[in-house]
Amino acid sequence: MSATLYAIGVGPGDPELLTLKSVRILKEVPCICVPKGREEGSSLALDIVSKAIDLKNKEILQAHFPMKKTKSPEHIYSLDAKWHETVKIILSRLNKGLNIAFITIGDPTIYSTFFYLYDRLLELKPDLKISILPGISSINASASSAAISLGLADEKIAIIPATYTDNLKDIMNTFDTIVLMKVHKVLDKIISILNELNLIDKSIYISNVGMKGEYICRDIRKLNKDELNYFSILIVKK
Amino acid sequence: MSATLYAIGVGPGDPELLTLKSVRILKEVPCICVPKGREEGSSLALDIVSKAIDLKNKEILQAHFPMKKTKSPEHIYSLDAKWHETVKIILSRLNKGLNIAFITIGDPTIYSTFFYLYDRLLELKPDLKISILPGISSINASASSAAISLGLADEKIAIIPATYTDNLKDIMNTFDTIVLMKVHKVLDKIISILNELNLIDKSIYISNVGMKGEYICRDIRKLNKDELNYFSILIVKK
Repeated sequence: MSATLYAIGVGPGDPELLTLKSVRILKEVPCICVPKGREEGSSLALDIVSKAIDLKNKEILQAHFPMKKTKSPEHIYSLDAKWHETVKIILSRLNKGLNIAFITIGDPTIYSTFFYLYDRLLELKPDLKISILPGISSINASASSAAISLGLADEKIAIIPATYTDNLKDIMNTFDTIVLMKVHKVLDKIISILNELNLIDKSIYISNVGMKGEYICRDIRKLNKDELNYFSILIVKK
Repeated sequence: MSATLYAIGVGPGDPELLTLKSVRILKEVPCICVPKGREEGSSLALDIVSKAIDLKNKEILQAHFPMKKTKSPEHIYSLDAKWHETVKIILSRLNKGLNIAFITIGDPTIYSTFFYLYDRLLELKPDLKISILPGISSINASASSAAISLGLADEKIAIIPATYTDNLKDIMNTFDTIVLMKVHKVLDKIISILNELNLIDKSIYISNVGMKGEYICRDIRKLNKDELNYFSILIVKK
């Protein structure tokens, strides 16, 4: 008697950006799992869902996702006690025949912690029944809000965490569109690179897309520094 | 008395992948515009919408989108008679105060013909009221169906029309995930590059995602050539 784990992308913030399928599954499942604690956006995912469906009579599992701020895969993947606890809780529900929806902001395949969980679950339960429901990612939503195309015809698109600046200039020269994620931490450095490459006028900054306080800045020289936050994206479109 | 043009991404094929917002707007608008003719996926967009909402009493504008198969921007942007006709029809409805939804498969910001139309409309009506509603792109849907992440933590993602093979090797070396669009035309060439870079076992082929006949191939050496078509994608995930 084994049930299905659904990974559901709930979109960037606006509950109306949920898909019909995600809403249907969220109504059907008895358990919803959401990462707890410091994880940016974790309570936001639950907040979005609560505006679209009735959470009464559902079990909400707020599980630990102990992500370490390090680039070492050994650290990221260290299966410590807290991960074990999270995996155990999820498997206990599935083994009782209860379907679970793991919810994540944006899309599960774009920089979501879901895949850390998935890898750990598969280790313990290789026959895990999984169904991943795509969601609107902040990338597509930001381009839509700014009314710009990410790519047309033969154009090439690069999506890069902005903290990665090693060969950013090469990438900016090769690609037609460059999407920089989580740009808030390194904006000064990025602006200096954009100036050097004469791309500052081709850049649009978007934060809090689909949320209250959505902010679009088409002249990033005049960017309001108060708008810098975790939910920020910079699109460079040549 | 000017109305709003909505550009709506209807997702890759499954009508349940429409967002709540797209369904609401599609129900509200009196006119739906869809590219007509040879354009791959044009009738598909209308087919998807027809499964989610009642099209009775709506005006369906099947407009010409004369895309030329050339890389020259002059050709692509040549505002010929057919484009003029399309733009004129759309503006006539907007000027009557009728909202129009332009529908496109996937997401409007990812390789959609919508932006060709948008540029032309803006030329004639700079104060055009536009609202772009994001949709699930075939990229996110394919990764979800294949249950793979497109990017985690500091990983870099490249999205490339597969017909572009100039410096594909460099890109494959630099990026963690490479998404090749419309790979059906150049698959043999791509397979030879993947073999050379020892990435053949890191590649997943997906076609018709979210449609009848969805096909996922995790060993592209054994790819069924009958499954090669316009709605195909190759994800290389190191």
